[in-house]
Amino acid sequence: MQADIGLIGLAVMGQNLILNMADHGFTVVAYNRTQARVGEFLAGPAKDISIVGANSLEDFVAQLSLPRKVMLMVRAGEPVDSLIAQLIPLLQPGDVVIDGGNSNFTDTNRRVAQLREHGIHYIGAGISGGEEGARFGPSIMPGGAIEGRPLVLPIFEAIAAKAADDEPCCAWIGPEGAGHFVKMVHNGIEYGDMQLISEAYHFLHRALGLDHSAMQAIFAQWNRTELESYLIEITSEILAYRQADGSPLVEQILDVAGQKGTGKWTGINALHLGVPLTLITEAVFARFLSSLKEERVAAEQLFHKDIGRGLIRTGEIGPWVEELRQALLAAKIISYAQGFMLIRQASLDFNWQIKSGEVAKIWRAGCIIRSTFLDDIHAAFRDEPGLAFLGSAPYFTNLLQACLPAWRRICAQAITTGLPMPAMTAALSFLDGYTTARLPANMIQAQRDYFGAHTYERVDSERGRFFHTDWTGSGGAAASSSYEG
Amino acid sequence: MQADIGLIGLAVMGQNLILNMADHGFTVVAYNRTQARVGEFLAGPAKDISIVGANSLEDFVAQLSLPRKVMLMVRAGEPVDSLIAQLIPLLQPGDVVIDGGNSNFTDTNRRVAQLREHGIHYIGAGISGGEEGARFGPSIMPGGAIEGRPLVLPIFEAIAAKAADDEPCCAWIGPEGAGHFVKMVHNGIEYGDMQLISEAYHFLHRALGLDHSAMQAIFAQWNRTELESYLIEITSEILAYRQADGSPLVEQILDVAGQKGTGKWTGINALHLGVPLTLITEAVFARFLSSLKEERVAAEQLFHKDIGRGLIRTGEIGPWVEELRQALLAAKIISYAQGFMLIRQASLDFNWQIKSGEVAKIWRAGCIIRSTFLDDIHAAFRDEPGLAFLGSAPYFTNLLQACLPAWRRICAQAITTGLPMPAMTAALSFLDGYTTARLPANMIQAQRDYFGAHTYERVDSERGRFFHTDWTGSGGAAASSSYEG
Repeated sequence: MQADIGLIGLAVMGQNLILNMADHGFTVVAYNRTQARVGEFLAGPAKDISIVGANSLEDFVAQLSLPRKVMLMVRAGEPVDSLIAQLIPLLQPGDVVIDGGNSNFTDTNRRVAQLREHGIHYIGAGISGGEEGARFGPSIMPGGAIEGRPLVLPIFEAIAAKAADDEPCCAWIGPEGAGHFVKMVHNGIEYGDMQLISEAYHFLHRALGLDHSAMQAIFAQWNRTELESYLIEITSEILAYRQADGSPLVEQILDVAGQKGTGKWTGINALHLGVPLTLITEAVFARFLSSLKEERVAAEQLFHKDIGRGLIRTGEIGPWVEELRQALLAAKIISYAQGFMLIRQASLDFNWQIKSGEVAKIWRAGCIIRSTFLDDIHAAFRDEPGLAFLGSAPYFTNLLQACLPAWRRICAQAITTGLPMPAMTAALSFLDGYTTARLPANMIQAQRDYFGAHTYERVDSERGRFFHTDWTGSGGAAASSSYEG
Repeated sequence: MQADIGLIGLAVMGQNLILNMADHGFTVVAYNRTQARVGEFLAGPAKDISIVGANSLEDFVAQLSLPRKVMLMVRAGEPVDSLIAQLIPLLQPGDVVIDGGNSNFTDTNRRVAQLREHGIHYIGAGISGGEEGARFGPSIMPGGAIEGRPLVLPIFEAIAAKAADDEPCCAWIGPEGAGHFVKMVHNGIEYGDMQLISEAYHFLHRALGLDHSAMQAIFAQWNRTELESYLIEITSEILAYRQADGSPLVEQILDVAGQKGTGKWTGINALHLGVPLTLITEAVFARFLSSLKEERVAAEQLFHKDIGRGLIRTGEIGPWVEELRQALLAAKIISYAQGFMLIRQASLDFNWQIKSGEVAKIWRAGCIIRSTFLDDIHAAFRDEPGLAFLGSAPYFTNLLQACLPAWRRICAQAITTGLPMPAMTAALSFLDGYTTARLPANMIQAQRDYFGAHTYERVDSERGRFFHTDWTGSGGAAASSSYEG
């Protein structure tokens, strides 16, 4: 029997993808470096279904129908390169290798070119949805060697999540590492969403003094509004989860957030590409700050900080909760808007021709950031494919305008009482900057010209014409060419 | 005649450094790829003083006393590598090559190792101060091959700026690219300072409605307080500068800020090293945002934005100005505190043993961020060399505490009225986060464990012990190992 596809790497994501493929009628060969895991898998979850094992890479390759489709679900970095090196002599031109891990897109760029030299079609496929998604339908973002596209899309579309309109959450993203780039931005947005939700939870808990039953009910209610999404839903469930003694488990969890690098990479690429991705970067920094637990405990004492003093005790709680919901919604729009700015810039710089509307469409189900509001994002890009800023689409302009007064009050309240809301305020500062025709960057340009002769443009002259002023009357007439500060 | 040192690259920084060296009795050989510039320099500014020219690299090298000291003042990147390749066959073991440009510290790491193989001592020296500093005394941050240290320090200490206590603004920073790393952070702090000043100027102009004479007087007055610094001083002079028709020049400058990369690299390295460098990164993003001029003009119309509506017309202006001064001062402390956090982390990760107090000391004069308050930073690190957060030093804790009420009011006012102050509010959010013993990162950890089995630590268990909860009752018991989202 020749298998439809082979998968290497039997950690939970790999196992679940194989089981998902088998559910959809595909025959899969499973392989793992540690042999014992293949046996356990075949004797356990993969028993009696269309899954076979391999006891060597040679055996693995021999069981695949031509052209071979080999999927890697191993740790990003060196393990991928090592496997590729082992596979190259075993494969032949026309075969496809798919990396389904969280590889850095620059590695994928390199590998697509490397395998092209051997006639092998290399695909970097971002896959989101966690264990559950992998098992029952993830969101899949493949990109790379276009020749591999028709060979993998039927399988991916079959196993992908289906949106409410039954469309599969899988679309070809673009050449090179475009798929992994978009998955990276997805994860960055996930960082942003999670940080915003945690700030809202913090406000409910520390500024409004609500208990976990009340907070659980609020997130459940928010999940019936424009905020409807997987992360809001699980936040409600997390708040509801009690320990054996009846106390909420979430309060026993240490406030030190881990991370594995994709959020960080999103920020780094925003800096490389010149995109003001403030919110997601603040979310990454907030995780770094959370890890300084001992320093924070000491600093709270040193500064006699007492967030509880900021507790809102006057008036009704209800209006504050609704204003917080609006603040969360508006900030979330900015988070996605910035994420799509980054995708757009990468697409322009790398000539990837990414369709933002398609990206929004395949994030509607299966992935961690799935939400109702991605339908509206999809519609916005469908109506205007080149949209530079999501907030400029009529639906989102109106929503942002409607939320702005509440958003301002929540952020001002947080700032006044010392409750940190770095992402929510960064988002507001961004919108305020983006909607300011005249920013004070003229002062920065004056300073740069003053101390470094970096020159400036004038408002009463055409763009691209540069001026230098001898501000002190003592400097030279020459403008700086290549040196900075 | 054998020269003390040779310098390659006769742009304005290179020329001024040579003239500075000549002032201090050193004989310098000047060389430039474009020969004509050597002749112009020798016939012009370098006429009749201890400066000689070279008409080839061979001629250049032949005129240097042993061990040779060759300083490169060329564009960072490929030009440096190209020159190094040309120099290697002309030099001999024991010679020193100094890169005085703004090279990325990772390039310097590599070059130190590369030249060590040839017995040549490679030094990466950050130099700040712009044209004026180069000519009359810059701040110099050398690092790299320690063997080169005694050969270059006498020259660098002679030409460096002298602080008020007559100490030269030059100190050996550490091995490898430590000097260029510290210079990079210097430039990042410069971005932060400039952004904060531009936000303060914006507030004075747009929220308080002050004219340029009033603003000039305010910055001049601020320069007689803890804010005393080069950048505050030149801001006052910039505001005073009038065009021929009497109108302030700064208002004719286009509000699109340029940048050359060191600020961006500071943010990128903060993300790599896990340091929450929020303010400087916001300052970099603010420059990116400023460059979206056409989008901003369109968005202001679309959102019917009118910052002028936020004009403070009630009551006295004076108290607002003083509160703004305090906000600027407090945010500036955070900017430097974050910068020193980054230097500390790099020093720990790379085992560079950088003395933060020394860094503060040599920034006190000569460089763009020179300011009185670096005396206090120097003192803080002298008293506690391992200080994790500058704001925890008594002097700065007291200052931050004193400024906090005003800082909160300024940021809340900006947020309420739509005046973007991204750096000033990011700084406040940071301090509020840093002084919060219990952050809502527990929710983030709960979410990560919920959807990805990433596990969490508990407040009632020792650190390093990880737990996983089957939140829905349907997941597996296995924790995720290597896969994210």
